[in-house]
Amino acid sequence: MTNKPHKKPLILITNDDGHMAKGLRKLIDLMKPLGELVVISTEQVMSAKGHSITTTPTLTARLVENGPDFKEYVCNGTPVDCVKLGYQWLLDRAPDLVVSGINHGSNASTNVIYSGTMAAAIEACMDGINAIGFSLDCYDLDADFDHLDEYIVTITKDVLQNGLPEGICLNVNFPKRGPEPIRGLRVCRQAAAQWTEAYSEFVDERGGTCLKLGGKFTCLDEGDDTDYYALQNNYISLVPTHFDLTAKQYIEGMRRFEHIIENK
Amino acid sequence: MTNKPHKKPLILITNDDGHMAKGLRKLIDLMKPLGELVVISTEQVMSAKGHSITTTPTLTARLVENGPDFKEYVCNGTPVDCVKLGYQWLLDRAPDLVVSGINHGSNASTNVIYSGTMAAAIEACMDGINAIGFSLDCYDLDADFDHLDEYIVTITKDVLQNGLPEGICLNVNFPKRGPEPIRGLRVCRQAAAQWTEAYSEFVDERGGTCLKLGGKFTCLDEGDDTDYYALQNNYISLVPTHFDLTAKQYIEGMRRFEHIIENK
Repeated sequence: MTNKPHKKPLILITNDDGHMAKGLRKLIDLMKPLGELVVISTEQVMSAKGHSITTTPTLTARLVENGPDFKEYVCNGTPVDCVKLGYQWLLDRAPDLVVSGINHGSNASTNVIYSGTMAAAIEACMDGINAIGFSLDCYDLDADFDHLDEYIVTITKDVLQNGLPEGICLNVNFPKRGPEPIRGLRVCRQAAAQWTEAYSEFVDERGGTCLKLGGKFTCLDEGDDTDYYALQNNYISLVPTHFDLTAKQYIEGMRRFEHIIENK
Repeated sequence: MTNKPHKKPLILITNDDGHMAKGLRKLIDLMKPLGELVVISTEQVMSAKGHSITTTPTLTARLVENGPDFKEYVCNGTPVDCVKLGYQWLLDRAPDLVVSGINHGSNASTNVIYSGTMAAAIEACMDGINAIGFSLDCYDLDADFDHLDEYIVTITKDVLQNGLPEGICLNVNFPKRGPEPIRGLRVCRQAAAQWTEAYSEFVDERGGTCLKLGGKFTCLDEGDDTDYYALQNNYISLVPTHFDLTAKQYIEGMRRFEHIIENK
């Protein structure tokens, strides 16, 4: 870490749709006026790679642009690798903020646990760094992100100014552009929902059979306080998200295991 | 699903250390008297692959043993793929229990979010299936698992008999064999801890430079109710674990974002 004074906040940008993704390029454009930027994006599409990290000696980060207040690297690892590599190796000071996205596709509800975009934000908040994941409820490669500009800038400026409580990051999902303007923002819990998988058989290049995961997303959670409900009703959803997987409400109920081990 | 009556519970076994791992083979041996087994393990080592899933049309599952009450498949995907593929494609009925492990290495504290072993158990409980992840606080390939036999069987029998509340699975970590016998079991919360990364440079086969992730685990959480504390004190730790990442205690505190979006 240097002692040089830094007037602008340092923002680390990453994503999981690869370095060419339209959502990433949009996010970079929106962040440019807000700080000094370091982009570390994935070489490959890393959707649904969850909190995966690379533990083999194979990681690389290629500097592809090196301008004033703007550096861009392309990394051959996962989104979490991008974040770890960023502030533990590439940067000379800790970033003030990590922003991840804009993801092509919703990370609301149970999607968050599979999401590389959100894993990057969660990784940052595990290390005490403010972080936001932005996602659009539209999987199109050529999705329209232009209706999000002012929302993303407003939320980001607030986090830069006021910070977030320790140990949480924000999971922000936007509705797809529709005939009506977005109605506002709702602070939510993640909806309980399920993917019902459906595999299809394919013949690979060597004549073998392989399978492709498909699936149907079903939300049986009827609460009006969920991210799923907000998106369905043309609101932005914002879920404060943490990394503690303890189901605290069940700790007392599980004490029976202490007794069965004692008495076995 | 068939209507054939099933006397024995159906147990799906998986892991993230690959199909040859000593911990997996031990778990299979321990489960044999408890039910009809289907093993779906990973071809490769999939440690630290988190909740990653394979979305390309490349998945395969090779049947390597097909005996009475015992089938074993080797899958080229991740631990979560093994679970999804298991009950959505390979099995003719939903398993009564998914057991994952025995992992070579602790999945206590924040390790849980990187863990393929625990991701498999979490995936099962997302679909309403009872699930347990077992891990030993020792990374050795030839680790000694023999002091765990009676504990694993006792915990598994209890879950088969009594089930678990919907939406949670168990993260069970065992201390490494020491001079003293294990003191008992503690139901815990996961400890707040951090990995401080340290990357080392390597020269790859083409003369390029690549990086390998290393790191130091630091637990500053001094609570005596954590899984880290239990393991350090020669207790088995059991953490009821869920998949809801909402930081519920911060929902009210985040309402400011509703107002700034309204008033922008």
